[in-house]
Amino acid sequence: MSVRIPFDEMKATAKKAFLNLGLSEEKAELCATIHTQSSADGVESHGMNRIPRFAEYVQKGWVDVHAEPELVGSKGACENYDGHLGIGVYNAVFCADRAAELAKERGIGLVTIKNTTHWMRGGAYAWRIAYKGYMGISWINTESCMPMWGSDEPGVGNNPFCMAIPREKGPIVVDMAMSQYAYGKLGVYRMQGKKLPYPGGFDQEGHLTDDPGAIEKSGRILPTGYWKGSSLAIALDLAAAMLANGFCGTDMDEQGKGSCTGCCQVFIAIDPYLFGGKEEVQKMLDRRVAAADASHPINPAHPVKCPGESTVARRERSMKEGVNVDETVWAQIQQLAAGNLDVQDIASVVIKK
Amino acid sequence: MSVRIPFDEMKATAKKAFLNLGLSEEKAELCATIHTQSSADGVESHGMNRIPRFAEYVQKGWVDVHAEPELVGSKGACENYDGHLGIGVYNAVFCADRAAELAKERGIGLVTIKNTTHWMRGGAYAWRIAYKGYMGISWINTESCMPMWGSDEPGVGNNPFCMAIPREKGPIVVDMAMSQYAYGKLGVYRMQGKKLPYPGGFDQEGHLTDDPGAIEKSGRILPTGYWKGSSLAIALDLAAAMLANGFCGTDMDEQGKGSCTGCCQVFIAIDPYLFGGKEEVQKMLDRRVAAADASHPINPAHPVKCPGESTVARRERSMKEGVNVDETVWAQIQQLAAGNLDVQDIASVVIKK
Repeated sequence: MSVRIPFDEMKATAKKAFLNLGLSEEKAELCATIHTQSSADGVESHGMNRIPRFAEYVQKGWVDVHAEPELVGSKGACENYDGHLGIGVYNAVFCADRAAELAKERGIGLVTIKNTTHWMRGGAYAWRIAYKGYMGISWINTESCMPMWGSDEPGVGNNPFCMAIPREKGPIVVDMAMSQYAYGKLGVYRMQGKKLPYPGGFDQEGHLTDDPGAIEKSGRILPTGYWKGSSLAIALDLAAAMLANGFCGTDMDEQGKGSCTGCCQVFIAIDPYLFGGKEEVQKMLDRRVAAADASHPINPAHPVKCPGESTVARRERSMKEGVNVDETVWAQIQQLAAGNLDVQDIASVVIKK
Repeated sequence: MSVRIPFDEMKATAKKAFLNLGLSEEKAELCATIHTQSSADGVESHGMNRIPRFAEYVQKGWVDVHAEPELVGSKGACENYDGHLGIGVYNAVFCADRAAELAKERGIGLVTIKNTTHWMRGGAYAWRIAYKGYMGISWINTESCMPMWGSDEPGVGNNPFCMAIPREKGPIVVDMAMSQYAYGKLGVYRMQGKKLPYPGGFDQEGHLTDDPGAIEKSGRILPTGYWKGSSLAIALDLAAAMLANGFCGTDMDEQGKGSCTGCCQVFIAIDPYLFGGKEEVQKMLDRRVAAADASHPINPAHPVKCPGESTVARRERSMKEGVNVDETVWAQIQQLAAGNLDVQDIASVVIKK
């Protein structure tokens, strides 16, 4: 069951939870904002749902709430940071902002970070770069959670890739993991007794299936676009580790400290008006988006939308009617806010139960 | 039916064809090399098969064989060119090389080009950047050939996206269109009386199908990863048009001059050793690739490979045993080489017949 909580109340509660976990005022404010915004945008899985797991990681010592990103390399428009296993959201916001600053000065900015931790909703940083007026590209490497194409055991991360276009009437933002469905999504469908809309993995006999429970059992989640998502996932892993001079996916596997602990991230920001005038570029974006949205719909009740447009609509609804949150997750965050830090990873409990 | 032709003979024949089409010695040599290499790498669809169509485009005046890319904008590590509807392959090689030069000087290089033409095999330039020792990212926008997710009519290009990692033991290269299967691939399966390995689109009744003929009839080719490939395709279109200050996909639709005529391309090259030592980075790449390749295979006869590894194996076989080419296509190229320029687009004939 879900409840709707006013944005400000949700954020204030989350902030108290973060303060109780030892975060500074500034970091608690930032993390509460990002997590609440993710839920408000409809990405609950990486918004409120992740706070209990974050609390668990902090208490296990996997996330150092006091760490600050440190510049360890720099050349022209390119910078490399060591995240010192600090808060993933805080480190990623820092890097995204820094990439945008470099793009402002130099047209393009490349910022990489190693030894950081889970950035929660990957798209948060692409959205952020777009709202600052720059084009954003970002990705992360993760521990192995998906079979490589042709394999029946996890061998690569689902390494999300994000791209954002700074359209003034609303950014166009892609935030895609390299698995067709997240494990979290499988659990949601299974608990509702539903099949997946499209095949999402292989069962233990190796047949493509839309049965979420069968995929959870086999661990054989489907890469996005079969061999294509598998190929891009390994390339993104190599690229992140190479450019950030840090861990690749199997280094994280060996370490065994949960999801994304010690991972690398890449943030590229580009000035959209490097070569075209602002008015002209924005007109082109509006014209192209309008043409895409005017595509003949399969179902007239579901008009075609470019990625990001529906997010803004969901956000507006959340601001008016309150932000959706799972009751169990919300109760847990309220416990954290009340100072009861004996948390368990409710997110995974909710998913796996 | 296919035949195997020695690499040098194939390249020399292709070069004569290009010379007969009015290309300079230098451009004919380059184009013959790239097209023959693509076929040798197993990408016949964008190697030999495309030469008849290229000839058709030249004779229609859609490609100007005398045009040179012109620098029209520059800031720091970023440059923008006008391709003046010159040869797509020549323009793209120029831009890829320029991006690598910028990366050498500045750590990263971004080169964009507008008013260019079909680059044939997208991966050719990512491979090229990788062999020069840099990481490469490139993409293109195309005319609309694939329905946006939720639509039943073409509304976006299949906009290939490429990423290459410069591993010394063999680059890892992703070259992926945003459609699950190319139209050319559907034709190949249909002519062989085969079903697709996985569903590749919708039939006219809107059902997901692995019947290639049904998809050709409906025109409803499936985006890679359903909604994900559709989302990334529109973002890549917007990004290419924005960064190159040129046509978006629907501008090409309106112009109606075939595939990719007047398109935009983006080339990013990055120094892989910006922040990590060469030896250390290469060791990490080898370690990670070896781990991925050691994934337990579904079928022991088909060990897991990272993208690009099989390409090198195919290339080696082509160099030893000759390069594979469709007999009809090869006859047509021989005609072109003999000075008979009354060509038709054999590639599309082969696909559509």
